[in-house]
Amino acid sequence: MTDLLIRNVRPMGGDVAAIAIADGRIAAIGAPPPGPAARELDGGGRIAIPGLIEAHTHLDKNLLGMPWYRNAVGPKLTDRIDNERAERKRMPIDARRQSARQAALSVSHGTTHIRTHVDVDTETGVAGIEGVMATRAALADQVGIDIVAFPQSGLLIRPGTLELMEQALRLGAETVGGIDPCAIDRDPKGHLDAVFGLAERFGRGVDIHLHETGELGAFSMELIIERTRALGMAGRVIVSHAFCLGAPDPALVEPLIAGLAENGIAIMTTGTPSRPVPPVKRLAQAGVTVCAGSDGIRDTWGPYGNADMLERATLLGMRNNLRRDDELPLALAACTTGGAAALGLSGYGLEAGCHADLVLVEAETLGEAIAQRPGRRTTVRRGRVVAESGAACFSVE
Amino acid sequence: MTDLLIRNVRPMGGDVAAIAIADGRIAAIGAPPPGPAARELDGGGRIAIPGLIEAHTHLDKNLLGMPWYRNAVGPKLTDRIDNERAERKRMPIDARRQSARQAALSVSHGTTHIRTHVDVDTETGVAGIEGVMATRAALADQVGIDIVAFPQSGLLIRPGTLELMEQALRLGAETVGGIDPCAIDRDPKGHLDAVFGLAERFGRGVDIHLHETGELGAFSMELIIERTRALGMAGRVIVSHAFCLGAPDPALVEPLIAGLAENGIAIMTTGTPSRPVPPVKRLAQAGVTVCAGSDGIRDTWGPYGNADMLERATLLGMRNNLRRDDELPLALAACTTGGAAALGLSGYGLEAGCHADLVLVEAETLGEAIAQRPGRRTTVRRGRVVAESGAACFSVE
Repeated sequence: MTDLLIRNVRPMGGDVAAIAIADGRIAAIGAPPPGPAARELDGGGRIAIPGLIEAHTHLDKNLLGMPWYRNAVGPKLTDRIDNERAERKRMPIDARRQSARQAALSVSHGTTHIRTHVDVDTETGVAGIEGVMATRAALADQVGIDIVAFPQSGLLIRPGTLELMEQALRLGAETVGGIDPCAIDRDPKGHLDAVFGLAERFGRGVDIHLHETGELGAFSMELIIERTRALGMAGRVIVSHAFCLGAPDPALVEPLIAGLAENGIAIMTTGTPSRPVPPVKRLAQAGVTVCAGSDGIRDTWGPYGNADMLERATLLGMRNNLRRDDELPLALAACTTGGAAALGLSGYGLEAGCHADLVLVEAETLGEAIAQRPGRRTTVRRGRVVAESGAACFSVE
Repeated sequence: MTDLLIRNVRPMGGDVAAIAIADGRIAAIGAPPPGPAARELDGGGRIAIPGLIEAHTHLDKNLLGMPWYRNAVGPKLTDRIDNERAERKRMPIDARRQSARQAALSVSHGTTHIRTHVDVDTETGVAGIEGVMATRAALADQVGIDIVAFPQSGLLIRPGTLELMEQALRLGAETVGGIDPCAIDRDPKGHLDAVFGLAERFGRGVDIHLHETGELGAFSMELIIERTRALGMAGRVIVSHAFCLGAPDPALVEPLIAGLAENGIAIMTTGTPSRPVPPVKRLAQAGVTVCAGSDGIRDTWGPYGNADMLERATLLGMRNNLRRDDELPLALAACTTGGAAALGLSGYGLEAGCHADLVLVEAETLGEAIAQRPGRRTTVRRGRVVAESGAACFSVE
């Protein structure tokens, strides 16, 4: 029997169809099936797209629902890292409560799966991991969450961090994180050997923040490519931010793109307008998987962001100067299918047999949905309506 | 007598106050005045900011309310210009109706004054000017509109355009427009002599689209500075876009900034993320007036944009990497006081004696208003409530 029948929707902006859902999966897309449905939903002619994938955020450190944080932080990356550690103790920031707030906000905008990097350091220990894991358990029916153990403050320069990373992986974090092997740990070989060593020992994937630009970032990326090749980790490594791919020199960028493509390494971009960014169109041409994320939203790092991954598609489109209707879907792909591929999610898509994770968006065409990001969406996760009219159907503290 | 008393608002995010309005001007800000008010409005503790200034858009060419335009246009600037002329005839685009639609959308977001560039060319003639003038007359109580006669398709390369520009200025366009003196007319001296010649003969200001980058844009900007100095036009010239100021070489950029500051030339930026852009913080330090605009929204050029000038402040802040609460107001200034200064609007501001043009925004702090651009605003223009809950209080075709 059909659990949920969504009538009168246009999958990917195409012809009107019905989507029949049973046991949390899409049973059929097309004419409404005979027989009763436990619940029916009139899609009102809206466009259906697969659930949005938030491939990079920091659920543990947003300040949603807390007093506005007056940012007076210095301009360097290390200023922001040091300030955050101090503020986390001062405020304090409750990772369980805050991650639930952001997860609910994400769902309200149409996200059905989130990858979050969670700080692991010698001051906070694994408290952030435990907090986000509590949210993951509490919201298991509403949204998927996977966790990267993230050595935000450095891995080797703060002794004890490596052991905490191991603890985080044993507790339930899925993926090994890393950050700027040159700029933070000041030891690119040591940092990456430690990160990939953990990945090998625990049998996990890797997701590395790489803010380093130009030749320095290119060098770190080469080291990541070498290790991915040596360990046969194709499909299990993401380089996040990857600002070095936004360098203007093709002689620097093209060999990196070839190395990423050959070794199945995905790129995560936020499309930030103030830094050089990976060229989405060129990466797609080269066969590199591109996913996207909000990064931190409304935290001690910065005041921006709202966890809306359809708005992220708009920003990616603007940043990459995608104007044509045949180019705009590249921006959406990074926030849907590209995210699912990069994160290795199985059963993802708007097809019979896939998990029933989808969003309804009021727009005339797919291009309009991407460029104008209409609000008041409906989110369905595993066949359950989890957000309606742009509001989550569940409450958090 | 007070015509409108707005209670319980926080001007610029400060202490709670009342704003008393009489005869379209702010009579007092502070304690509610004694005596009756014809109308009272509870501000609900919202922040009051002065009316948003849209300093650069194209009211005549948006496609709001029309079927989604499937963009398949080539990548060059001239591809877009030529495509637009062809599409304007094909569709057709009614400048009167479309300008009214966009003006109403602007007001719904909090804009109280708009500068629009309106195409003047040998195909459309001055029909665009006439259409926008009809909207200006129809909406005179709702929003201020000033018009730049804009030779989008070139001034000298299309004979007859100069005469049409003169006709536009006689009809009621206030300002002389220009565009890329090298790239379009292929004759920078000829183009700028014609533009500034019109300005001198008609006693008008100048507003030039300058997309040219690097050394070429710098050369054109030098020619603009020279003519502004020679004609004593300080305070009456805007360079729009000015991508050359986003070049990485201080040796190229700094002399230009000094020339702009010395000669009272303002810069208009959209903060576009896909091109080099003028550095807002550096320009403010140097004393150059910076204003901002949406540029074209949802037209044959591109699918983006919604005419929200508070969102423009968010985008400017992101583009210029403004994160601190003491830096964010720079982004808002470009969309308020900077716009008023650049356009030469008199009586602008959130002070007693100024025109009662203001917006109410639900936010805890000014930083939150800028970075998070909350919706459902109330717009007041000359003491009249023209938008409530984010919707215009008047209808257009």
